[in-house]
Amino acid sequence: MKRMDLVIAGFGTVGQGFAEVLDMRGKSIALSTGVEPRIVGAFDSKSAIYDEEGLDPNLLLYNKASGKVGNEPLVDGVAFLESIDYDLLVEVSPTNIVTGGPGLHHMRSALGSGKHLITVNKGPLALAFSELSSIARENCVEMRYEGSVGGGMPIINLCRESLSGQEISSVMGILNGTCNFILSRMDSGLPFEQALKEAQELGYAESDPSYDIDGIDTACKVVILANSVFEIDCNIHDVDVSGITAITEEAVAMAAEQNYCIRLIGEVSKERLEVSPRLVLKGHPLSVGGTLNVAQVNTDLAGPISISGRGAGRLETASAILSDLLAIIRSSVNNK
Amino acid sequence: MKRMDLVIAGFGTVGQGFAEVLDMRGKSIALSTGVEPRIVGAFDSKSAIYDEEGLDPNLLLYNKASGKVGNEPLVDGVAFLESIDYDLLVEVSPTNIVTGGPGLHHMRSALGSGKHLITVNKGPLALAFSELSSIARENCVEMRYEGSVGGGMPIINLCRESLSGQEISSVMGILNGTCNFILSRMDSGLPFEQALKEAQELGYAESDPSYDIDGIDTACKVVILANSVFEIDCNIHDVDVSGITAITEEAVAMAAEQNYCIRLIGEVSKERLEVSPRLVLKGHPLSVGGTLNVAQVNTDLAGPISISGRGAGRLETASAILSDLLAIIRSSVNNK
Repeated sequence: MKRMDLVIAGFGTVGQGFAEVLDMRGKSIALSTGVEPRIVGAFDSKSAIYDEEGLDPNLLLYNKASGKVGNEPLVDGVAFLESIDYDLLVEVSPTNIVTGGPGLHHMRSALGSGKHLITVNKGPLALAFSELSSIARENCVEMRYEGSVGGGMPIINLCRESLSGQEISSVMGILNGTCNFILSRMDSGLPFEQALKEAQELGYAESDPSYDIDGIDTACKVVILANSVFEIDCNIHDVDVSGITAITEEAVAMAAEQNYCIRLIGEVSKERLEVSPRLVLKGHPLSVGGTLNVAQVNTDLAGPISISGRGAGRLETASAILSDLLAIIRSSVNNK
Repeated sequence: MKRMDLVIAGFGTVGQGFAEVLDMRGKSIALSTGVEPRIVGAFDSKSAIYDEEGLDPNLLLYNKASGKVGNEPLVDGVAFLESIDYDLLVEVSPTNIVTGGPGLHHMRSALGSGKHLITVNKGPLALAFSELSSIARENCVEMRYEGSVGGGMPIINLCRESLSGQEISSVMGILNGTCNFILSRMDSGLPFEQALKEAQELGYAESDPSYDIDGIDTACKVVILANSVFEIDCNIHDVDVSGITAITEEAVAMAAEQNYCIRLIGEVSKERLEVSPRLVLKGHPLSVGGTLNVAQVNTDLAGPISISGRGAGRLETASAILSDLLAIIRSSVNNK
């Protein structure tokens, strides 16, 4: 049987979730496609492991729980990647929106040496999407990133596949579950500070919540959608961003009187890349509550189509990686 | 350039919409896939037209507006189909939920003679899905029907493609825009009879509205989802159906007091095929108003994913046919 040898860069929540999901679905993918996906390597910031014969996902999970994913100390991720044989990099290391972090170097290395890439790491994509997709094109490999926008909500594949006969004029969405949780709690009368505190207590918001509540995370997703769905060559600095910190209880109450709620909306079109709090009519598809993500795709023939789902979570995001993996395996089968 | 020769059976609203959409997108499909889709034949209940060199969609639309789609009187659709050369049947004749109508015969003829089939005609699918897909399989051709459920809302392709790595436990949805319009108007305090009358005045409901309000249309869609997404061999008689005619203003008001609305929900799972009015919490993805359709797909890894869009309409439904056509062309290219 043909094989697709994977390396996982970053073995935190999402990396572990993916190992778990691959353990559950690897055999059925092999049966249905004739290609067996197999983990041959993994590393985090401290250690690495490689075995050309394949690694049991459960061993990796056990190792990680014991403190170290591998027994080889990691000096440099790129050097490690260049020393081993593999077909596809799953890049899920921590995101860095200022420099792209090690993830950006891992991606350049993988694509540049003719390996496919699946990532959910938003920083490198929001800074260097166009450079990375050029490298992928030049090396005839695929770069996929469904989980980077909307977690388990398949917005990118929806636009690329199911809506491929449509002309898409814009995508508008709630792309950050933390902000949506806070705004939904404010709908119930809570002031911003208290809603934020609750989000932190429930683990939805970080102790430094600025990445979410200042709209930066949503802006990264706007950039990824703009590049992938609209083929706009842009980066994070091209997005006009306002967050939700200035929203008062009074504003939420006034909106509610008119049957509106306030939601942090990312908007992407050829004319506009914007993140801002907006009034949304209650009952409108974009008026969802809680930590859900939702996106409305405006098409010329079918009109507006909305999709919603869990925007984050270990298995949810891992399932997006799995769908990218399936797509790459299928297209590799078709092209042979 | 390779060609894909199409025949359109039924030249009403959807057939005309498809001719219009193909006129708009035919060239770009040819450019992007290397296969030119071309209408070579069309017929309605009265007349037919065929030209192996291809027919201008605008000529067909002009003919139809002048009273006759073709200059050849139609005696029998199947005899016509058997007398001509083509690759793919677009079956969009009026639906018949009791016998399957002529549409069922057209479909058997096309698939049986090795032609691909795209249809939005629910009757034949709700009565004989399993028979038709067997004929398709035996003849190595594709049968696609995205527009038969949810019009422009791509629920079937979402399940088949974007969610292909997921195990789907159930699909629940609002699959009939007429009922949803009536129930949404009842949310504003209108009694059922008045909301129905308004729907009829606006053209959302037929003068005999029973097919919609008794839940039959939704039940057809439940059958199509059950067969296609869950591979359950079932037909319309296997669905437990209640409509919306018994819903009172008082019931709607009582639901609203508890922050719920009433919606007609079709549910499909291995255990249950059901159409019934249900309480839906306001703000839940299934609580959309107006003529929208919405479906929630419950998956094991990504949790619930919802999609909504316009459930009917000339261009909306035609765009679903277009997406099926693109999928068939792409897979025919990959298999050669």
